[in-house]
Amino acid sequence: MSATLLALDTPAALIDMARMHRNIVRMQLRMDSLEVRLRPHVKTSKCLPVLRAQIAAGAAGVTVSTLKEAEYCFADGVADVLYAVAMTPGKLLQVLTLRRKGCRLSIITDSVAGAQAIVAFGQQHDECFEVWIEIDSDGHRSGLKVEDPALLQVAQVLCAGSMQLVGVMTHAGSSYELDNLQALQAMAEQERATCVAAAQTIRAAGLPCPQVSVGSTPTALSALSLEGVTEVRAGVYVFFDLVMHNIGVCQPEDLALSVLTTVIGHQVEKGWLLTDSGWMAMSRDRGTQKQHRDFAYGQVCTADGNWIEGALLSGANQEHGIITFEPEQGRDLVAQFPIGSRLRILPNHACATGAQFPHYHACDIDGGVHTWSRLHGW
Amino acid sequence: MSATLLALDTPAALIDMARMHRNIVRMQLRMDSLEVRLRPHVKTSKCLPVLRAQIAAGAAGVTVSTLKEAEYCFADGVADVLYAVAMTPGKLLQVLTLRRKGCRLSIITDSVAGAQAIVAFGQQHDECFEVWIEIDSDGHRSGLKVEDPALLQVAQVLCAGSMQLVGVMTHAGSSYELDNLQALQAMAEQERATCVAAAQTIRAAGLPCPQVSVGSTPTALSALSLEGVTEVRAGVYVFFDLVMHNIGVCQPEDLALSVLTTVIGHQVEKGWLLTDSGWMAMSRDRGTQKQHRDFAYGQVCTADGNWIEGALLSGANQEHGIITFEPEQGRDLVAQFPIGSRLRILPNHACATGAQFPHYHACDIDGGVHTWSRLHGW
Repeated sequence: MSATLLALDTPAALIDMARMHRNIVRMQLRMDSLEVRLRPHVKTSKCLPVLRAQIAAGAAGVTVSTLKEAEYCFADGVADVLYAVAMTPGKLLQVLTLRRKGCRLSIITDSVAGAQAIVAFGQQHDECFEVWIEIDSDGHRSGLKVEDPALLQVAQVLCAGSMQLVGVMTHAGSSYELDNLQALQAMAEQERATCVAAAQTIRAAGLPCPQVSVGSTPTALSALSLEGVTEVRAGVYVFFDLVMHNIGVCQPEDLALSVLTTVIGHQVEKGWLLTDSGWMAMSRDRGTQKQHRDFAYGQVCTADGNWIEGALLSGANQEHGIITFEPEQGRDLVAQFPIGSRLRILPNHACATGAQFPHYHACDIDGGVHTWSRLHGW
Repeated sequence: MSATLLALDTPAALIDMARMHRNIVRMQLRMDSLEVRLRPHVKTSKCLPVLRAQIAAGAAGVTVSTLKEAEYCFADGVADVLYAVAMTPGKLLQVLTLRRKGCRLSIITDSVAGAQAIVAFGQQHDECFEVWIEIDSDGHRSGLKVEDPALLQVAQVLCAGSMQLVGVMTHAGSSYELDNLQALQAMAEQERATCVAAAQTIRAAGLPCPQVSVGSTPTALSALSLEGVTEVRAGVYVFFDLVMHNIGVCQPEDLALSVLTTVIGHQVEKGWLLTDSGWMAMSRDRGTQKQHRDFAYGQVCTADGNWIEGALLSGANQEHGIITFEPEQGRDLVAQFPIGSRLRILPNHACATGAQFPHYHACDIDGGVHTWSRLHGW
């Protein structure tokens, strides 16, 4: 472990830069070979150096989950921004302001009422908003079903109201519930086919629908064909995490985000290590709880990042973590992990764990550690 | 709903100031009547105006869960600070620096090795650290058992090393698993009796142990006697939450923290409302999952804060919440909760939900809304 890393206060969120770059290249090459653009979702990292690395590798534009992220990316020179949460009237002024500054911020809607509100506000302010229609490809959340008559109505409202109908977009979030390649390939095909069918429905009515945007990390890494799709959105692939490991789209050595923690005590009779990484550091995310392998609050690794088989962050209070070992193997915990010694914890969900930290510490292969700030709040 | 509140961007973390002040007064009066000092835990709010209200009501000093909180409170003039997580060698320099500036920052340890490290560092820097010994009163986390021979050894190491042994402290965190008054009273008595016994063990050996500090919100509000205790620490009582509601130490009308959210869509066939409060706003905390009443990701209220019976935030993605109604009652969701309409969500765990926001919006009884910043990170 480098001296710089040893000197860090804990808990700290570490990025393994080599792994991150490998993850970025892997996804970009895959999208290149499938002949679609990649529009990474910045919600995972909320961090400009990460986004810059994605763009340098070939990404086209960015996806955001909040308007604050849109402002943050645009201020760094990224003008092509898709805000992938359904627009509400109260947020349109902020969108307008960004667009008037030169940001090509596009928005989404999945209802006639939503489209009407966008048209009314756009006409009132003489603005031609760029709008995507959100499609429900798997029933897990929002979006219009491809057979819903409202799909064409929304398209008509937008076009008649002189807004720019950019295309259709969907997110097959239920891919997170799968864990084998065949099911993932089927879900990717369902996501693709549904969204392409929605575009064809709109085009058949004589309305424009140039773009078809799909994506989630599991489907993006499993799709056999993306025919008819023009761009893919994905976020968590940049770091990966234990949930993605369980789904089967990455290996342990791909996980680029970890939490550096310090041993603060022992309960020897119980075989517990106490650490300074509680849920405030890890988040309360227990995404692996319902998967085939439950990692509790995280997989424990050595300070250098080597997976300690059977060592889990089993419990988490606000600033206390409890590490247990299975099987106990008669370890001398106090000798092996004295107070002050350091470990790393791999998180269930990189988006949730990253959000607990004001900055990352990005570790390069030469032992250098770079402080990268990240966005918090709305 | 006031115009100021209507104009807020969502999601927003609202504090009902009248409820908060009532909660503060309730706990302070209880501690006054039990003749102990109250040292509130700032880890819940991490917010100076909240802490100032607690101190104005009579609190003596503050408890913190991170050294950043200690710096934050001391910069605001609060000098008497207890850092209630076991000290590690790597954090001693930061403690020393704060003490040299005039902060009466005290620290805790629960091991001979921990005490030795404090002594070694203190002697090296000619500093007499103020140290508490942490006692395990319920087996839930850290601390020394009262019958453990290490208890006296730690006291001896500290005293022989010329540190100031302030006293003993404990936290009966397993009170969070209870839900009836009798069990809570028994746990409060166990917490008190164990910690007092630890102090007596140290005193019987001829060593000083002036202070006895106990506390958790449930035990503090249930204790019948605090004989032998000198101070109580508690945090979440300032806002309360659904977990505390289920434990039985507060009523729905005491919950002072809520998340203001906007309806962004509907899935009419499923009876779903989609909102802009996902887990990034609520946190992933599902503290009521194992309790007798599971509130999913939160209890839904009207924009004015009135509990909508049976309406829960059942699902949460990063920036999407899914509200369901039980029973469905044939509601016309689109008419009753159109896109752009507002609701409030009461959280499972105020400490975790608050942490997701850079600031609170504190609402006074005259309709005024005050922006209060809060601490993030370490």
